[in-house]
Amino acid sequence: MLPRRRPRALGAALLLLLLLLLLGFFLFDGRLRGAAALDGDPLGGQGGHNRSDCGPQLPPKCELLHVAIVCAGHNSSREVITLVKSMLFYRKNPLHLHLVTDAVARNILETLFHTWMVPAVRVSFYDAEELKPQVSWIPNKHYSGLYGLMKLVLPGALPPDLARVIVLDTDVTFASDIAELWALFAHFSDKQVIGLVENQSDWYLGNLWKNHRPWPALGRGFNTGVILLQLDRLRRAGWEQMWRLTASRELLTLPATSLADQDIFNAVIKEHPGLVQPLPCIWNVQLSDHTLAERCYSEASDLKVIHWNSPKKLRVKNKHVEFFRNFYLTFMEYDGNLLRRELFGCPGQPLPGAEQRALAQLDEEDACFEFRQQQLTVHRVHITFLPHEPPPHRPHDVTLVTQLSMDRLQMLEALCRHWPGPMSLALYLTDAEAQQFLRFVEASPVLSARQDVAYHVVYREGPLYPINQLRNVALAQALTPYVFLSDIDFLPAYSLYDSLRASIEQLGLGGRRKAALVVPAFETLHYRFSFPTSKAELLALLDAGALHTFRYHEWPRGHAPTDYTRWREAEAPYRVQWAADYEPYVVVPRDCPRYDPRFVGFGWNKVAHIVELDAQEYELLVLPEAFTIHLPHAPSLDISRFRSSPTYRDCLQALKDEFHQDLSRHYGAAALKYLTALQQPGSPA
Amino acid sequence: MLPRRRPRALGAALLLLLLLLLLGFFLFDGRLRGAAALDGDPLGGQGGHNRSDCGPQLPPKCELLHVAIVCAGHNSSREVITLVKSMLFYRKNPLHLHLVTDAVARNILETLFHTWMVPAVRVSFYDAEELKPQVSWIPNKHYSGLYGLMKLVLPGALPPDLARVIVLDTDVTFASDIAELWALFAHFSDKQVIGLVENQSDWYLGNLWKNHRPWPALGRGFNTGVILLQLDRLRRAGWEQMWRLTASRELLTLPATSLADQDIFNAVIKEHPGLVQPLPCIWNVQLSDHTLAERCYSEASDLKVIHWNSPKKLRVKNKHVEFFRNFYLTFMEYDGNLLRRELFGCPGQPLPGAEQRALAQLDEEDACFEFRQQQLTVHRVHITFLPHEPPPHRPHDVTLVTQLSMDRLQMLEALCRHWPGPMSLALYLTDAEAQQFLRFVEASPVLSARQDVAYHVVYREGPLYPINQLRNVALAQALTPYVFLSDIDFLPAYSLYDSLRASIEQLGLGGRRKAALVVPAFETLHYRFSFPTSKAELLALLDAGALHTFRYHEWPRGHAPTDYTRWREAEAPYRVQWAADYEPYVVVPRDCPRYDPRFVGFGWNKVAHIVELDAQEYELLVLPEAFTIHLPHAPSLDISRFRSSPTYRDCLQALKDEFHQDLSRHYGAAALKYLTALQQPGSPA
Repeated sequence: MLPRRRPRALGAALLLLLLLLLLGFFLFDGRLRGAAALDGDPLGGQGGHNRSDCGPQLPPKCELLHVAIVCAGHNSSREVITLVKSMLFYRKNPLHLHLVTDAVARNILETLFHTWMVPAVRVSFYDAEELKPQVSWIPNKHYSGLYGLMKLVLPGALPPDLARVIVLDTDVTFASDIAELWALFAHFSDKQVIGLVENQSDWYLGNLWKNHRPWPALGRGFNTGVILLQLDRLRRAGWEQMWRLTASRELLTLPATSLADQDIFNAVIKEHPGLVQPLPCIWNVQLSDHTLAERCYSEASDLKVIHWNSPKKLRVKNKHVEFFRNFYLTFMEYDGNLLRRELFGCPGQPLPGAEQRALAQLDEEDACFEFRQQQLTVHRVHITFLPHEPPPHRPHDVTLVTQLSMDRLQMLEALCRHWPGPMSLALYLTDAEAQQFLRFVEASPVLSARQDVAYHVVYREGPLYPINQLRNVALAQALTPYVFLSDIDFLPAYSLYDSLRASIEQLGLGGRRKAALVVPAFETLHYRFSFPTSKAELLALLDAGALHTFRYHEWPRGHAPTDYTRWREAEAPYRVQWAADYEPYVVVPRDCPRYDPRFVGFGWNKVAHIVELDAQEYELLVLPEAFTIHLPHAPSLDISRFRSSPTYRDCLQALKDEFHQDLSRHYGAAALKYLTALQQPGSPA
Repeated sequence: MLPRRRPRALGAALLLLLLLLLLGFFLFDGRLRGAAALDGDPLGGQGGHNRSDCGPQLPPKCELLHVAIVCAGHNSSREVITLVKSMLFYRKNPLHLHLVTDAVARNILETLFHTWMVPAVRVSFYDAEELKPQVSWIPNKHYSGLYGLMKLVLPGALPPDLARVIVLDTDVTFASDIAELWALFAHFSDKQVIGLVENQSDWYLGNLWKNHRPWPALGRGFNTGVILLQLDRLRRAGWEQMWRLTASRELLTLPATSLADQDIFNAVIKEHPGLVQPLPCIWNVQLSDHTLAERCYSEASDLKVIHWNSPKKLRVKNKHVEFFRNFYLTFMEYDGNLLRRELFGCPGQPLPGAEQRALAQLDEEDACFEFRQQQLTVHRVHITFLPHEPPPHRPHDVTLVTQLSMDRLQMLEALCRHWPGPMSLALYLTDAEAQQFLRFVEASPVLSARQDVAYHVVYREGPLYPINQLRNVALAQALTPYVFLSDIDFLPAYSLYDSLRASIEQLGLGGRRKAALVVPAFETLHYRFSFPTSKAELLALLDAGALHTFRYHEWPRGHAPTDYTRWREAEAPYRVQWAADYEPYVVVPRDCPRYDPRFVGFGWNKVAHIVELDAQEYELLVLPEAFTIHLPHAPSLDISRFRSSPTYRDCLQALKDEFHQDLSRHYGAAALKYLTALQQPGSPA
């Protein structure tokens, strides 16, 4: 009867309707994407529906995704990290980064990724030098120089068994999971080999100005800041010959490429439109000065990738730049340590390192937990954070080595005035502070004038200041044969740099004798005073009570062996003997023993190093003209905690005991004197 | 012919196959979600496919989503901000937050959201006091106290025209766009009114220990940290009677609720299983001590919401807590200013405020751009960041008012020792620093013992220290009739708090006379010295040259009018006259003029305030026994910049000129004396 049949009929009808709708949806979706760029609609089909991104199925959980980036020099190495952070923040798949780098970038990024220890991220390096010959014949006017052009040779440069890769410029930022981008490979027809987003400016339409003659392109052309490359097909299709032919032919009539690889990619595509799979505009929102990107992002409910395709980068002028700047800052200032997140349920992740295992076994209730934790923490290290020129090789040259955190930044200018030679400085900063530091240096004529100061950022992690780990980073990066091991709250005599090099030569340090040159340390308790320009002036101030020998009031043992009385009269270097708690500031060969990283926070960190020098039979020679002066400052948080907390003192005592056990293990009976010396009471330096 | 027909036939077959697959996919998806929690599978159907979340279509771009949160007290007000940040980070829709708060939370969150100015976010407050009677009859043992129970009465408390709302606990964190959660409303059958995730522990199975008798629940029961409420249907279904009946009946046999509202929700659902729509487990990943959540997140390739449903919060012990902590820290330390992002293409967004418009019009090339920018910046303000007890009303009580940034944190303990009275402190911090500050206070017995110190966090933004804006925040939050306007690098005499209250009473300050009491300022250039316990001792140190009158060496004008010579002998308060550049530290009634916010960074910020006091005819009375002493510290970045940069000085001059123009506008001829006084040369204080 009807009542019964109606629902059935109705159901069937509805079902059919649903099916047709779904079918339509899918076909329509494909078309739209296919058509996107060609019909000049820069939206690339970004309706609301794209937002839930049901077009392609995402790649299976744990599938490895490949990304290639060309990166050269100090600044690009800094920029690319923001890209990497944004990618890691949203990613849920294992990643393999293929980095084409020059020597500088490789040195920086190898150290960074090695210390970053992000699970499920592999990094391979490829030498840009080797690729240069393949592109250096192309005249090019773009700010990316030769390096931009290297994107053309990736199919040959990357491993032959690598079938697909996402190629990114260093100036893009992700706002979504890169797996969604990878999923777009599924849209490629068998003929398509390159996925690109349409160029969001009128550049390739030509006539932007009189005699503006861009390279040939389809309509607005495509932007190569984000590329999906089907490497296997490109190789089979003879890509190398293809782009070389096109490029050389165009270069008969055009003087040079204006936009590097992008001009050539577009010229090739103009010739072979079938090669390109246009991608939705949201995968490369371009923020150059005259961008048309707003047509893309104001319609789309979602942005996937932002591209700062202007030499001005964040200073580019466009209506919504504030919005995009904020988005970029999110990852620029993002604490990279937080990206050390494992991918749950993905196999083949590297086993945790020794430190991590030890860390996991620590007892949070242990009174010295903070110390143990800090000692085991592996800090992310970004060496030569700013452009730096290695000093020319000079046999007796000395690098000033020290470390600091944000609250001592003000010392840098004064230090530069007092020390005209090379410096290697470790800075203990958060990611956000590193950016403030960058702006601080840019704003300072004194600092930005110096190319011989190397700044190494060690990223903050943990409750205590890892002073000796920082010193070791700065020490390891010193490039001269000798180093002056100083602290940031000291200013050396103006003449020290020159006089040290003279002394090193005269004494034949390193070569003939194994010695540490002691630079006598003084302090002023006044925070305004005029720095003595000679030993005579210094002695006068000393007699006037305006200066004191360092920590004369609360810890004379620390420098007593320097024998200040003898120093007053001394005209030649004189030898002194080690004594308990001695912690002078010394000049030593670069290959000197490292600092003991177990000493974190305040206390005994230098003392232990001098013990090590003595144990290795370094002579201690005090220099008659050299001096350095400590300036007053509010006590650091660490020293305040030390003064207020008995636990802190107890833990430090425990560290000292362990240190001495290790000493006797290394040096046997010879180390006995340090143990006995320790018996005498005395608060740690 | 065949060759022609085959493809067609093939195509048709493929098409049909596709359609069936799709159909299957959609139906399956729905089923799975529907079945999820009931069949005891805590995954709630989280296969790979859930990742691209194609089940429901996301809500249309720009649709307004509603969220309700119950929040009370200082700590929850701090925690909820992390939740809000995570929600705002991923959201792409306008949001309306419905906050049920006590007086404390409302005060804090009203100020916060007012100063946060996030586009496309509306906030409504509902008074928890009014709702208490409806739930206070229920005996409850859960740490959330009465407030947890208030989730039960939301259908009645929220506006009657509000049909759907997402209810969240303050201890959840989003890892995805809340619109995806909102989209799950689409799965509700007409009977279903509550969406919940299964409880990820065995609590409701009972027998966790001897005599463990939980409230009744379906299987493992549901967790109420994340709730989808179909308010309109709940109201129609007579929800109020429903839960009250069940609760009172259960309370006949059970002593009290152990898990607050959650016990009652589960009891009701046990009775009416049809009411609940089980949600996928990833929408409420529960991290209590004995959680079974791993079964959820190790299979799912994506997490949507994390729930710290343990009183231990981040200290909870479970295998992957590090991972979740990192995720939580991401938003705890996230710079909230970056969330002031507009939603492109959504109508009805509030027009930018006067400041924003002015900011937009600033010329980045203007030499004083940084000053202008800083003056116009509206800072996010989080008042009473830590638990605080308002001081009891005392007619002559004084609050010490000052401001600081991270580099002066060490001063706080000393300040607490010197000032036993109430304090109102503005701290200029980043979001990350605010968390360090929290840990710093928790670690300090001195600081955590004080309930009468109110800490107000003003979030960093811009290049210059907004000193007067900070002072105004601290001043506005002072709750005593009088305030002592100090700076963080000063320590007051131990007796000052008591002696001030005595003087205020004797002089009948405020009531009979309008006066500012001057506290003479001194300084030590030594950073180690013993603080004088009396005027006599102070004078002795002064004569010994261990102390000086404040800035005697480089800027005597700043305090000359205090007349230190007279002060030596003085035994009674004496009146002094204003003079150019005078900037004493004063005690005034709370309703005194505010500081001029145009003075940012270093220079003239206090001077202008004293001028204002004089212009409003405050008597200046110097107190004979009172004193405060400045401790030395490394110069701040701002003062260093001032000394080094002529532009900085020029801009400051410009500010001073504008200030005087405004003065004459306000006070007419009377203001003339300030202008003429300015003619005399003198570097700014």
